Amino acid sequence: VPQATVADVRFDEHGLVPAVVQQHDTGEVLMVAWMDGTALERTLGGDETVFWSRSRGELWHKGATSGDTQRVVEVRVDCDGDTLLVLVDQHGRGACHTGERSCFGRRLPNATTTPRGPTPPAPPLWRFTDTDTETHP
Amino acid sequence: VPQATVADVRFDEHGLVPAVVQQHDTGEVLMVAWMDGTALERTLGGDETVFWSRSRGELWHKGATSGDTQRVVEVRVDCDGDTLLVLVDQHGRGACHTGERSCFGRRLPNATTTPRGPTPPAPPLWRFTDTDTETHP
Repeated sequence: VPQATVADVRFDEHGLVPAVVQQHDTGEVLMVAWMDGTALERTLGGDETVFWSRSRGELWHKGATSGDTQRVVEVRVDCDGDTLLVLVDQHGRGACHTGERSCFGRRLPNATTTPRGPTPPAPPLWRFTDTDTETHP
Repeated sequence: VPQATVADVRFDEHGLVPAVVQQHDTGEVLMVAWMDGTALERTLGGDETVFWSRSRGELWHKGATSGDTQRVVEVRVDCDGDTLLVLVDQHGRGACHTGERSCFGRRLPNATTTPRGPTPPAPPLWRFTDTDTETHP
């Protein structure tokens, strides 16, 4: 894997960069949080994830009080440097403050999951007949 | 999976929400892009992802010119409604404009991948001897 440096990370006008947190072995996307320069430095220099809490306006060592810490496996930066991907091993109950493992527990209905319009016609019966004849002669 | 509605999505002060795009079957995180209300509506209502291009300031039907489209499998929203997770089937070369499959191709050196300090001592030899004796009597 090609290497980048912290200097390649582009923080936004608030001095923050979004960090996608993914369970390293299962691939599950656990949460998205934000890092400032200090949070990124501590995450890279330590064993566990540190974020910037936008709601509390302070550094946030994830799981420090709840025990739901995240051991850092690898940190990646995207092609234009404005998003991070943090591969972790999630400890405790999970990443979400609701107690769920992932924060992405709710689905939005879309055209794929909620087909609209008439149901497509069933395949003609002769197809089943043919197949049946061919596979069980 | 519990359902949410578009009304649960909280757009930021620019009217945007970040969308993590993940290959539905392998779990690979392909990219992170942004959606405004229209991009989200089109993504939910159609077959392929549509984003808001912050650099060009316009709607962006991903892959419309390159052919690297993303078929939408499922769209999820996180616990506080300010981030989306879009499960897709990536077509063409990949998600990244560099031609790579994922935008997250570069690693930042961290304490885990770049251990500092002295190398830990090797385990004592008698441990191997013991194990060997026990498993191959």
